[in-house]
Amino acid sequence: MSGPQKEPMFERIALIGIGLIGSSISHASRRSNLAREIVGSARTPATVETAMKLGLIDEGYVTAAEAVEGADLVILCTPVGLCGPIAKEISRSLKPGAILTDVGSVKASIVRDVSPHVPEGVHFVPGHPIAGTEQSGPESGFAELFDSRWCILTPEPHTDGKAVEKLRSFWEALGSKVEIMTPEHHDLVLAITSHVPHLIAYNIVNTAEHLERVTDSEVIKFSAGGFRDFTRIAASDPTMWRDVFLNNKEAVLDMLGRFTEDLTMLQRAIRFGDGETLHRLFTDARAVRRSIIQAGQDTAAPDFGRTHGQTTPSSSAPAKKR
Amino acid sequence: MSGPQKEPMFERIALIGIGLIGSSISHASRRSNLAREIVGSARTPATVETAMKLGLIDEGYVTAAEAVEGADLVILCTPVGLCGPIAKEISRSLKPGAILTDVGSVKASIVRDVSPHVPEGVHFVPGHPIAGTEQSGPESGFAELFDSRWCILTPEPHTDGKAVEKLRSFWEALGSKVEIMTPEHHDLVLAITSHVPHLIAYNIVNTAEHLERVTDSEVIKFSAGGFRDFTRIAASDPTMWRDVFLNNKEAVLDMLGRFTEDLTMLQRAIRFGDGETLHRLFTDARAVRRSIIQAGQDTAAPDFGRTHGQTTPSSSAPAKKR
Repeated sequence: MSGPQKEPMFERIALIGIGLIGSSISHASRRSNLAREIVGSARTPATVETAMKLGLIDEGYVTAAEAVEGADLVILCTPVGLCGPIAKEISRSLKPGAILTDVGSVKASIVRDVSPHVPEGVHFVPGHPIAGTEQSGPESGFAELFDSRWCILTPEPHTDGKAVEKLRSFWEALGSKVEIMTPEHHDLVLAITSHVPHLIAYNIVNTAEHLERVTDSEVIKFSAGGFRDFTRIAASDPTMWRDVFLNNKEAVLDMLGRFTEDLTMLQRAIRFGDGETLHRLFTDARAVRRSIIQAGQDTAAPDFGRTHGQTTPSSSAPAKKR
Repeated sequence: MSGPQKEPMFERIALIGIGLIGSSISHASRRSNLAREIVGSARTPATVETAMKLGLIDEGYVTAAEAVEGADLVILCTPVGLCGPIAKEISRSLKPGAILTDVGSVKASIVRDVSPHVPEGVHFVPGHPIAGTEQSGPESGFAELFDSRWCILTPEPHTDGKAVEKLRSFWEALGSKVEIMTPEHHDLVLAITSHVPHLIAYNIVNTAEHLERVTDSEVIKFSAGGFRDFTRIAASDPTMWRDVFLNNKEAVLDMLGRFTEDLTMLQRAIRFGDGETLHRLFTDARAVRRSIIQAGQDTAAPDFGRTHGQTTPSSSAPAKKR
């Protein structure tokens, strides 16, 4: 991460969509003086208003086409399914020489949907910061979100090298480490590191909700046994995640097939009391956790560093209304 | 949670096994002055030595039979599979009138394995604190582990009521809330709130490790997309968890069947692009998260309150060697 810039890297950044990622990009850009001006648009006027009030954007627009005018960096921060339609909408308003990027969790479908609308002279470099929390909306962002996290860029072979390097520098200045790969490989890697984990988390929450012999209240009370860990990522934005699964079908179904195959083997080991297989697999898993901590991708603090010893629920912050 | 007692609740507590739970019981008992003396035994002499050094126990023994002599509260804090053999070993050494309990994550098999060895006049009240971290060993315990968490007791109908009430008071003084249910219901509830979540976490870590087209290094680097949440509980003690699955086979297989059924439905929704079903299920899951936070069973802080903005891995504590 570099320190604050003397001259801003961009004159005008346009954020299309101002949720968790858009607002965090604004905070982190301000932190390092990366833009002379940050403008934005959102589908709902209330979001634009909130973003103005929070100082996330200097100017707010109702349409994406207005927002991108004169911007030398345009970042699509909407659910994946909206990127194509928005690209079509802004196509004629993009400034020649501008860099167009996105933050979507799938990449091949974005390339497919956005590329046809990118005019000559505009550099489209798809991107995906591997960072987030379960919160959403313009109030949920913070400047440190991308620190030490990876951001993947998936330019095509013909993409302008300078534009790619400038976007890489931008993400590094936001705090990230940057890796470049193909959209297809990105989608495969993220299927296992993000998409299938979210699907499984959503699924077990759903399973737990529909039991006849265990009450919802029991599920809640005794969730500290492990279940609560899953509910965090299952609280992520439903629209964003619907779009992820609709747009990374093949890789997700592929990885899900592997997962089910492995689970069936574990199920069989339990059924036949094969303690040796269970113990071996459980021991291997510890090593992976250690590697993640050593790579700086998670905290070494027990229980994620959750605060213990809160004797009353009210001593923790109230759950945020969504 | 009551404050420190004037007179200790027990004269002599014997901890059989001094890992995360045993050591946390010691810390929490000292915090509230619940025992005049805490003694213990462990299978490996090094653990006893460490426990003595840390002040977790006043006297350490190599055998459980020696440790329980004269104790008015004996707590089995070993993996579930060892409870039966240890009960047999200590049977003749238990003090008349003593309360014998355990902290195992399954209850019906404990009742089956331990009860035959409990002598007349000793009160066996099985227990299970729904609390823990992914750490293990005598150094991993802390006094606040049980604060605001639930502890389930599963006495039989003929169990002495006074003994049950005394153990309830003990757990409340350790910081817990207490619920009483049958061993069978406990095993069903924990199958969904704890056992299946752990199994799924172990399984996806295993799946991710054995891919041909995604490297282990990629899995580690991009784990912040969700995968890392699963690795925490998959780093739990392998022996403890092997014993859980070997001893709660029916309930786990039952819940696993439900989970797979639901996952197959989600898989089908993805295959056929049924965004409406996906969105509905994902929206429901948010409500469960909110309930858990409102019940004081998890933190409302985004990302479990993980520290963001650690720019170098070395700024977090090093991974603990196991």
